Amino acid sequence: MTALTLNTDADVIELTRQICDIESVSGNEKALADAIEAALKTAGHLEVIRDGDAIVAKTNLGRAKRVIIAGHIDTVPLADNLPVTRMLQDGKDVLWGRGTVDMKAGVAVQLKLAVDLAEPNVDITWVFYDHEEVEASLNGLGRISRNRPELLHASFAVLCEPSNAQVEGGCNGTLRVDVRTRGVKAHSARPWMGENAIHKAGEILTKLHSFQPDTVNVDGLEYRESLNAVLISGGIATNVIADETVITVNYRFAPSKSPQDAFGFLQEFFDGFELELADSAAGARPGLDLPEAAAFVAATGSTAKPKYGWTDVARFSELGIPAVNFGPGDPNKAHADDEYVEVEQIVSSELALRNWLTA
Amino acid sequence: MTALTLNTDADVIELTRQICDIESVSGNEKALADAIEAALKTAGHLEVIRDGDAIVAKTNLGRAKRVIIAGHIDTVPLADNLPVTRMLQDGKDVLWGRGTVDMKAGVAVQLKLAVDLAEPNVDITWVFYDHEEVEASLNGLGRISRNRPELLHASFAVLCEPSNAQVEGGCNGTLRVDVRTRGVKAHSARPWMGENAIHKAGEILTKLHSFQPDTVNVDGLEYRESLNAVLISGGIATNVIADETVITVNYRFAPSKSPQDAFGFLQEFFDGFELELADSAAGARPGLDLPEAAAFVAATGSTAKPKYGWTDVARFSELGIPAVNFGPGDPNKAHADDEYVEVEQIVSSELALRNWLTA
Repeated sequence: MTALTLNTDADVIELTRQICDIESVSGNEKALADAIEAALKTAGHLEVIRDGDAIVAKTNLGRAKRVIIAGHIDTVPLADNLPVTRMLQDGKDVLWGRGTVDMKAGVAVQLKLAVDLAEPNVDITWVFYDHEEVEASLNGLGRISRNRPELLHASFAVLCEPSNAQVEGGCNGTLRVDVRTRGVKAHSARPWMGENAIHKAGEILTKLHSFQPDTVNVDGLEYRESLNAVLISGGIATNVIADETVITVNYRFAPSKSPQDAFGFLQEFFDGFELELADSAAGARPGLDLPEAAAFVAATGSTAKPKYGWTDVARFSELGIPAVNFGPGDPNKAHADDEYVEVEQIVSSELALRNWLTA
Repeated sequence: MTALTLNTDADVIELTRQICDIESVSGNEKALADAIEAALKTAGHLEVIRDGDAIVAKTNLGRAKRVIIAGHIDTVPLADNLPVTRMLQDGKDVLWGRGTVDMKAGVAVQLKLAVDLAEPNVDITWVFYDHEEVEASLNGLGRISRNRPELLHASFAVLCEPSNAQVEGGCNGTLRVDVRTRGVKAHSARPWMGENAIHKAGEILTKLHSFQPDTVNVDGLEYRESLNAVLISGGIATNVIADETVITVNYRFAPSKSPQDAFGFLQEFFDGFELELADSAAGARPGLDLPEAAAFVAATGSTAKPKYGWTDVARFSELGIPAVNFGPGDPNKAHADDEYVEVEQIVSSELALRNWLTA
């Protein structure tokens, strides 16, 4: 098989298109990781390290400060939305397709700058990582921090997650639980001999349907919470009364709460039902009062906003590294079937970062 | 691979055990069909015909009347309940395991008598068929009636479905629909940009949970109806708001109603939701006023009861052949994880049929 390649001489718009068209749904990042690794290795000023399907590329210029600029290379499953097309959308020039927003335009900005900037004003550790869209235990950045913690030393980090080319501070935490109803199996012709576990799920779904989540002010930014069933499954055959239904529920909670607080809330909310914690990740307070973050906001001319989705900003926050989200794309379009990014945001993100790194 | 074999010299209890231990979940009947075919071919008085995984074995003695005695050889999926064990259950001698009730004890009675009775008082068409536990379109008896209708000519039919070794008349009809809720996909960190299709299913499940089905008197027997969600599934990933949930609902309706009546009722019941008919099969009125059926009730010393589950009695009813259910096993134990049959019922069913066929 011929390896797929990326042309970093192309502009960042064309490079976004190329990166999107190498499909990399979580677990299938290898072809794209190979192409990114090969592109980075063409730049003599970079030390390139591979870990699984993550690639770390470092300048080693002996600068006073080092920053990390990171992004994930995986996407959620396709919705018949590849290859990417460039089109007008509400009068705007956009790239349409899976990954354009979350977050391959950001990855293109990173890759373009990593290869271009041989003499940045700080040392830079560029990180391209796998498995961000799936359970936290698989996250490539987490794996690097366990396997090669020395690669994540820095005084500041930027995550090129979609944030409309503005700084978004912190992020909500996220937690998944499986809520289970139990019944008793029987033939569906004589259901009165059993107990229908699917019918019991009605109470849970109705409760979720009518729930009004909070909005929480943290360090001056308003974090909007949410609580949603994301998966449901029950039943084994069309003529058998099901003895189990599992509802996977995703809770996004403000960064002022710990995962323990969040789980405690769910235990109360689902009182009377079986609850199992599947996965959790703490949020990150916005931290825009930290000097490194404040300086970045100023340099990019941004208005800071809260980040609703969980991002690996929280991981840097745990490692004690101030970090912000800054990247092209409207986060509301992440994971949508009609995912698309405004071309103008790709260009302006690249320019803002380039100016900050070369000023 | 060595073919699995059945020993028809063994008594009907041991033969039940052997038949159960050849696993034959719907779609996987071949090994058992092969063994039954081989056993039938040892009997010189039978003409043996194979159609897919169904086997028909006929006596051709020129008797004045011909009866069909039929049963299906498939089961619902296992629940870690094979091989069969013989044990005491509430002080009763039972065979415990998948298929013991539905309906391999009945199949053993058929097979034992088919091989033993070289000179019955009527001509007999023994039918062993596949795919009864799945959608009606796959049903082996239906396939025979389409491919080889001449094989199903008879003046009376007995289906050895579990009925506590008593005659059960007629059967409820059965109908499956898929009820669908729709939403709009979004990232689960920003669910307000989408619309949660799983949450909408709460209303349907709550309605089903509180519904009180009818009991309908048909020709003197009381048919208890039921309406149940049997499968539910929704969601594509743990961080995506689902845009679709599908609930499969099984309606068991009295034989006085047509499938059209039943579907009309569901359209009204699920008003406002998308409804798709997946499968339906008419019930059968008990027909115990017909002379053939009344004579069988008398010969076996039975008290007639209504049959709740759909059985192929309905198919014979459509072909104009009076038919009843008569076989070992408590139908309440069909499809249960602790499925078991009382040994005494296997023995008494065999004896009743043997007496009727040789009197």
